[in-house]
Amino acid sequence: MAKEQQFVSQIADIESDFPQWYSDVVLKTKLVDYGPVKGTMVIRPYGYAVWENIQKELDRRFKETGHENAYFPLLIPMSFMTKEAEHVEGFAPEVAVVTHAGGEKLQEPLCIRPTSETIIGTMYGKWIQSYRDLPVLMNQWANVMRWEKTTRPFLRTSEFLWQEGHTVHATEEEAMEETMKMLGVYEEFAKTCLSMPVLTGRKTEKEKFAGAVATFGMEAMMHDGKSLQAGTSHYLGQNFSKAFDIKFLDKDGVQKYAYTTSWGVSTRLIGALIMTHGDQRGLVMPPVVAPIQAVIVPIAAKKEGVLEACHELETRLKAAGIRVKLDDSDNSPGWKFNEWEMKGVPVRIELGPRDLEAGKMTVSRRDTLEKSELPLDNAEEGVKSLLSDIAENMYNTAKERMESRIVDAETLDELLDGVNKGNFVRAGWCGCRACEDKVKEFAQATARVYAKEDTAETCVACGKKSAHTIIFARAY
Amino acid sequence: MAKEQQFVSQIADIESDFPQWYSDVVLKTKLVDYGPVKGTMVIRPYGYAVWENIQKELDRRFKETGHENAYFPLLIPMSFMTKEAEHVEGFAPEVAVVTHAGGEKLQEPLCIRPTSETIIGTMYGKWIQSYRDLPVLMNQWANVMRWEKTTRPFLRTSEFLWQEGHTVHATEEEAMEETMKMLGVYEEFAKTCLSMPVLTGRKTEKEKFAGAVATFGMEAMMHDGKSLQAGTSHYLGQNFSKAFDIKFLDKDGVQKYAYTTSWGVSTRLIGALIMTHGDQRGLVMPPVVAPIQAVIVPIAAKKEGVLEACHELETRLKAAGIRVKLDDSDNSPGWKFNEWEMKGVPVRIELGPRDLEAGKMTVSRRDTLEKSELPLDNAEEGVKSLLSDIAENMYNTAKERMESRIVDAETLDELLDGVNKGNFVRAGWCGCRACEDKVKEFAQATARVYAKEDTAETCVACGKKSAHTIIFARAY
Repeated sequence: MAKEQQFVSQIADIESDFPQWYSDVVLKTKLVDYGPVKGTMVIRPYGYAVWENIQKELDRRFKETGHENAYFPLLIPMSFMTKEAEHVEGFAPEVAVVTHAGGEKLQEPLCIRPTSETIIGTMYGKWIQSYRDLPVLMNQWANVMRWEKTTRPFLRTSEFLWQEGHTVHATEEEAMEETMKMLGVYEEFAKTCLSMPVLTGRKTEKEKFAGAVATFGMEAMMHDGKSLQAGTSHYLGQNFSKAFDIKFLDKDGVQKYAYTTSWGVSTRLIGALIMTHGDQRGLVMPPVVAPIQAVIVPIAAKKEGVLEACHELETRLKAAGIRVKLDDSDNSPGWKFNEWEMKGVPVRIELGPRDLEAGKMTVSRRDTLEKSELPLDNAEEGVKSLLSDIAENMYNTAKERMESRIVDAETLDELLDGVNKGNFVRAGWCGCRACEDKVKEFAQATARVYAKEDTAETCVACGKKSAHTIIFARAY
Repeated sequence: MAKEQQFVSQIADIESDFPQWYSDVVLKTKLVDYGPVKGTMVIRPYGYAVWENIQKELDRRFKETGHENAYFPLLIPMSFMTKEAEHVEGFAPEVAVVTHAGGEKLQEPLCIRPTSETIIGTMYGKWIQSYRDLPVLMNQWANVMRWEKTTRPFLRTSEFLWQEGHTVHATEEEAMEETMKMLGVYEEFAKTCLSMPVLTGRKTEKEKFAGAVATFGMEAMMHDGKSLQAGTSHYLGQNFSKAFDIKFLDKDGVQKYAYTTSWGVSTRLIGALIMTHGDQRGLVMPPVVAPIQAVIVPIAAKKEGVLEACHELETRLKAAGIRVKLDDSDNSPGWKFNEWEMKGVPVRIELGPRDLEAGKMTVSRRDTLEKSELPLDNAEEGVKSLLSDIAENMYNTAKERMESRIVDAETLDELLDGVNKGNFVRAGWCGCRACEDKVKEFAQATARVYAKEDTAETCVACGKKSAHTIIFARAY
């Protein structure tokens, strides 16, 4: 246990210093490193493998819902950004600007995309002529750049990787349906693949995407009770179609502006899953996106037959589609246990002479740290079933925690007390910006999503008969 | 045939105006469009699907050879670029520079990566301590930016997508082995997946990567007889490890500089496959990376049972892993034939009442335009086997053409005559830069690869007893 203590002691206390715990975990498990330019990150292979699994799962869902991938340029003329008034106001302060290229000063400065509505809108305006061209359902996987003052790996970095869906529809109804459908895809994905429960709902005017008519978000509760916006789906109405001249000749022979949507999730999801599931020992990887789903640790590896049996088991599990790693390094089993626990591998399999004799393997789950034995005979099914149990248990545990930590407040003091204790706070809100600002100032909490619109509660800030119920929380 | 004529007439003549043929084909088939910023491209869904298939095939090969994916930042401090003297000389004139971000002027200008040796080298210098850390075998899929004066979609664009492998080794031998291994992976991939024959070999000093000790390239012959550099693998020696302090403590207790390699292919490959296989009717897609491998065109679609049978066939082929599309649009069969031929779909299946009665389908191959009949019973195997025949035939056809168009020259006049006739020209070269420049000036041809080093031929330019045999060609 000395080694374990040594490992654990390298990670800051998760309860008393969560920010330091986070930095310790992401760096020590080699998910990520700081890039040379302030605010940038290097996604190391262990972190990138999580992203690849996220991409694979999402990409399949996007294609199943009829979307195609494309790729639009990184550089956007500054003049495009200014065509939608709210959009430029929201993004201009964060853009990185290219002024020189090929040894010359550019005639017009170009910005590195902070998001691509403007450049994609320009192309859509060119491509779309008739109702026959609609709907257009595209997605791109890309890097984007938003120059931020305060950054943290995965959570907020000047450059990050994401996907951005951009769709065009003939009617408001269709566009709204698409907006909600993709929010639903995100929610189902978060549950199934990240074992992460979320709250979904509309965002307030203050919190919505710059240029959207309405933004719908999904919010996840982190270990410290703060909220993390894990994905958004925007109904853009005709705002961008008017700014970028996305018109079509409808069946009735009339030229109309189209309705557009956009929706995205990013490498931020990696931060979200770390802060949802992690514990004092380090990462706890959700099985569906875990780079390594099961690790085999030989016990008394030098005893005859042990390593051979481990290799054979590895081959069998791999053939069954399980992402398995055999750790046949020179480190001691204790060292290996700690390392793979810190890295969050969902299932650890120990195989030693006694196990082999009994035709069994010793199995530890990372989520509950419980040990059990499984027959070697049917190892494939045993591990698969365990992975599926773990995914479900991780989701249920996180869901219970989140639900137990949503409290109601009727006054600002109660709201402050609620968020101080690491809760999401459900409270009434009259709908005015001043009251939203007041909550922020008083409790450093923001409106995450509408829990319910048009209710009859009392506004937590001004006491007026409220129109809406809001989930307030401190947020990343 | 009227419709066909109409389609064909939209594409410039492939023999007399190949550049215009290329533009017509890539735009009309919706592979790509011009981006708003000069020199940029928008990769449309049909083009991006080719790239996704290329990625999938290559990524699998990289992983099978032990490489892991990672992601390094887009922005590189200018000062990094200058650490390797040849490297900065080669790339500085082409970089795009970010001078402002977040509303402020940056203290140090940042360049958008034209390639990532410098930033990855910096991280490797930090991460690698001991021989135990080696080899490091990483790859990244990313966008890069090189500001070019003359651009053409896929072939040369200011921004393009690529993969760049970056590896670190303890010894020269290992690094050289890696360099050649990845060149081999590219060559096998080009043959298997793009049905594209290539010539591989070392590049001359003049043509090598800026900062490499040696560059090995693969060159493919395009329809017009010009060469296209389709991929490169660089042995970097200790150039970058010295510039970026990539040192390790070796087994013998001595600190040593490591040996590095890098290797890459890009969206240029899409241009390569278009110009290798295309014909007067448009694209001819290599089956392995074709977005649509087989298209089903119903004949007399309104006749009872036809559409149902088409849907059933589509379902069966899909289930068998074939990328199939049923074109049940209102267009006439003739129109559809032309459209899918232009888009280069390898197999067209016609299914009408007579076919159904006979339990057959009529099948046309895009490569030879031959029609035949296949039993519906065993459609899955029939189409798969046809796809595989097509891939092989496309490779063989392209290989025969390339081989028949490699000619020998002993004088500059012969060399000029050879390239004028659309050939690759094999000739002696003494090895001096002045003679290489002379060939360029006289024949607008460059040294593509060494065919053989240390031969006893006569230099085509100066008449000296030559040291090497070179493949000269005009190139994209």
